[in-house]
Amino acid sequence: MAGTKTNAGNFFEDFTYGQVIHHATPRTVTDGDVALYTALYGSRFAVQSADTFAKALGYPRAPLDDMLTFHVVFGKTTPDISLNAIANLGYADCRFLKPVYPGDTLSSTSEVIGLKENSNGETGTVYVRSTGRNQHDEIVLEYCRWVMVRKRTKGSPAPEAVVPKLPERVDPQDLGRAVPPLDISKYDFALSGSPHRWEDYEPGEKIDHVDGMTLEEAEHQTATRLYQNTAKVHFNQHTESKGRFGKRIVYGGVVISLVRALSYNGLGNAFHLAAINGGRHVAPTFAGDTIYAWSEVLEKAEIPDRKDIGALRVRLVGVKNQDCASLPLKTPAGEYAEGVVLDLDTWLLLPRRV
Amino acid sequence: MAGTKTNAGNFFEDFTYGQVIHHATPRTVTDGDVALYTALYGSRFAVQSADTFAKALGYPRAPLDDMLTFHVVFGKTTPDISLNAIANLGYADCRFLKPVYPGDTLSSTSEVIGLKENSNGETGTVYVRSTGRNQHDEIVLEYCRWVMVRKRTKGSPAPEAVVPKLPERVDPQDLGRAVPPLDISKYDFALSGSPHRWEDYEPGEKIDHVDGMTLEEAEHQTATRLYQNTAKVHFNQHTESKGRFGKRIVYGGVVISLVRALSYNGLGNAFHLAAINGGRHVAPTFAGDTIYAWSEVLEKAEIPDRKDIGALRVRLVGVKNQDCASLPLKTPAGEYAEGVVLDLDTWLLLPRRV
Amino acid sequence: MAGTKTNAGNFFEDFTYGQVIHHATPRTVTDGDVALYTALYGSRFAVQSADTFAKALGYPRAPLDDMLTFHVVFGKTTPDISLNAIANLGYADCRFLKPVYPGDTLSSTSEVIGLKENSNGETGTVYVRSTGRNQHDEIVLEYCRWVMVRKRTKGSPAPEAVVPKLPERVDPQDLGRAVPPLDISKYDFALSGSPHRWEDYEPGEKIDHVDGMTLEEAEHQTATRLYQNTAKVHFNQHTESKGRFGKRIVYGGVVISLVRALSYNGLGNAFHLAAINGGRHVAPTFAGDTIYAWSEVLEKAEIPDRKDIGALRVRLVGVKNQDCASLPLKTPAGEYAEGVVLDLDTWLLLPRRV
Repeated sequence: MAGTKTNAGNFFEDFTYGQVIHHATPRTVTDGDVALYTALYGSRFAVQSADTFAKALGYPRAPLDDMLTFHVVFGKTTPDISLNAIANLGYADCRFLKPVYPGDTLSSTSEVIGLKENSNGETGTVYVRSTGRNQHDEIVLEYCRWVMVRKRTKGSPAPEAVVPKLPERVDPQDLGRAVPPLDISKYDFALSGSPHRWEDYEPGEKIDHVDGMTLEEAEHQTATRLYQNTAKVHFNQHTESKGRFGKRIVYGGVVISLVRALSYNGLGNAFHLAAINGGRHVAPTFAGDTIYAWSEVLEKAEIPDRKDIGALRVRLVGVKNQDCASLPLKTPAGEYAEGVVLDLDTWLLLPRRV
Repeated sequence: MAGTKTNAGNFFEDFTYGQVIHHATPRTVTDGDVALYTALYGSRFAVQSADTFAKALGYPRAPLDDMLTFHVVFGKTTPDISLNAIANLGYADCRFLKPVYPGDTLSSTSEVIGLKENSNGETGTVYVRSTGRNQHDEIVLEYCRWVMVRKRTKGSPAPEAVVPKLPERVDPQDLGRAVPPLDISKYDFALSGSPHRWEDYEPGEKIDHVDGMTLEEAEHQTATRLYQNTAKVHFNQHTESKGRFGKRIVYGGVVISLVRALSYNGLGNAFHLAAINGGRHVAPTFAGDTIYAWSEVLEKAEIPDRKDIGALRVRLVGVKNQDCASLPLKTPAGEYAEGVVLDLDTWLLLPRRV
Repeated sequence: MAGTKTNAGNFFEDFTYGQVIHHATPRTVTDGDVALYTALYGSRFAVQSADTFAKALGYPRAPLDDMLTFHVVFGKTTPDISLNAIANLGYADCRFLKPVYPGDTLSSTSEVIGLKENSNGETGTVYVRSTGRNQHDEIVLEYCRWVMVRKRTKGSPAPEAVVPKLPERVDPQDLGRAVPPLDISKYDFALSGSPHRWEDYEPGEKIDHVDGMTLEEAEHQTATRLYQNTAKVHFNQHTESKGRFGKRIVYGGVVISLVRALSYNGLGNAFHLAAINGGRHVAPTFAGDTIYAWSEVLEKAEIPDRKDIGALRVRLVGVKNQDCASLPLKTPAGEYAEGVVLDLDTWLLLPRRV
């Protein structure tokens, strides 16, 4: 009866190895998006908060929060990649390559870099490398992601399995491209809110970020729509009430942004998220959950030819409905501990001692 | 005891035929309003989303979503027209006449074009033509609306009844004035998210827009305040808890915006709402309701002297708490079916085949 | 186990008389913040709403709502001043000194102007004068505030008590510095929404602002994060569920902004909040509360050398979950009446008769 002009999303059979998908709806990001981002997460990193602070260092103005760029680029991929996804399995090799400023227009493409049917014949894993570009066709962001996608027809012919080799972590020499050369002598450590430089952190160090933030339905829906992310599970209580959890699921990116904002308290000068090496949404979160965070410094690296900034490889852990005084992560049996919702392996950049 | 400087709103006796009301509080619309509009409804039409997309076609930059313009112009009329209204009875002859851009300042006037007391002597119908203007005093929007308004005093003298003749539909030759001449060869159908042009739709075609969106109190209140709409029923749970429904009523314009945003999935190139021929809020909606939408193409028209765009007359139907697979509208007895909340008769513009 | 790089906030012992604290995270305010402010409170004062209206009078463009400036400046002080505060005891001598426009960058400092240990040896009162500056290092706002702060160690040595002398009210000659000389002949009283000038109000006049607005969790959290205010009690249901009230407390500034926005209905031309002479958050407010407001004109003053604007000293009263028809304030015994949540002593500026 109804026409067939609506998007039913792609099924596993619709993806082919090497295929490039141009995602819909380019998006001009503005001061309005920046204000909303602040209002939704309360982030306090000085570089992104104040034009004056950013300009003193060498930026033309305050750049967007890196996760805002990520969400906008990611949101465009959802109607094509994950509308029929059962699970978001992982991320790798996510690198921020150019700063993004209000007024820039972002668009996204994805290349299928791997395909593997599951043995049940009902689903398969699709690997894509997604790329965000600005209005000058410059790449601002690249990341790999793999999702489990339903097949349209059980038992339909399967493509040859290709599983891409993904780096365990981004090489430090590839970090920092989204940061112009900075005059770190102008970095004001009183205004940034923390005296701690790159040199002050050491591998093994763990930081309880202390604060907690309770999520509301109106907040995560507003955030997710801002990114024009269309995944149904976040918005439709009518169907979700009959679903697996009986309620809407918070977009995992909202949890990443919250954890990143909470991490300011202890990592106040880690102003740039340069890369995501890998990540897992360990458990779903829902409205009413209170999110806490803690971090572990995994590695410390110089960036070739950069004396202004240094890199810390940091595991950002998100936990719900319990504080992080005990730094919860895994059980003795190696399972994620109760309450852990996010385990994100990142490279963060901090100013170095002049 | 209290002073008399507050606005008690106009009663039926306060309106006179031919009266022109200058509504308060002009409003400069900005990138901030645009971002909030996206965050509140998740709209994805490319022309309004990306400066690059709009400029390639011939706009100076991305124009505002038409319904954002409508809401701002409409919001200003509420303190004078509908503060004492019992019911919003209908709309007609709503035409968008100039594009609106961030930085423009909108103001509203209304002319009383009809008055008719009801036989109960307690209420009457007031017909107004409301006009939105920009800072250059150019008309950007015009529409007729009629509301049932309380009388201050039952039985007070009634004015001579005047019922204006309103067009059943806007004539196609009056459409498209808010769209500059477009270079449709630059319209990118991958980026717009749909391959379907004006030629691809036919009268009688029905489209289930599939997706549903659940409304929250904080969302509709935030939207309605953004438009500086002051109607009490949307904001005051303390009084509404004792009212007809026991809860706050969602501003009907929020439902229109949601339905319009949902209609992207199936009408992805219907980038401009050129006119509203008529409309009815069939039933109230409340926080917690999930809104779905479907459309029916009623008519197809060329616009004189325009080869770039064509017009579709589309009935947009909003439904709550049930999906639209069965395209619910009316019962065999001719009543609106259970769940239908909006029946809006619109003209939408789409690119034509070059 | 966890590192010590997080901010534990200052305890009473950490403050010294004369100390100047530079607060973190400067903030560029934008059109995005302005749109959010409108969406959160629905304010309708024409000067702040429309560039055209403001420019006709002599502003370069519409200035920010004064309370938005206040919240941003105030928010920065919370991590240093009030993280370990038990109570926000009062405000005095708050003066708005320069207009703030989108694009300005605000930062805050505080000077400790008084210290007094309480007799219990567990807490003390800290008095600060906080100053907000723009990117040109011009002072845009100054206010005094005193808070009760926990001691780190009961019985630790107390500083010499210093209690500053604070003015009972700001002197009228110090008002209006944030308002450029205005051409009041261009003030359009139809567009402003009220015919009442400064001359039309008299001391003793009381105004019931009629309207009520119900607060939602997502709204007050969004507002408070917008100001980068980090006070935990507003955001963390997990801890607050075990706290004094069992729920999150709304930031008092949200109530001030709501009451100020509601006061438009009766004080529509009181476009500038020039000073806060004193104020008290009489009772906490929570999501679900409906806020009403009424005002009393306490005093009327000319401003030296200004014929464009005059000052009204107005008591703004916020009330929850009951309307203000009876103008509730105090009981015969002198206690605040049930329902009163805010008692704010302000100077408001209005246009004078030309």
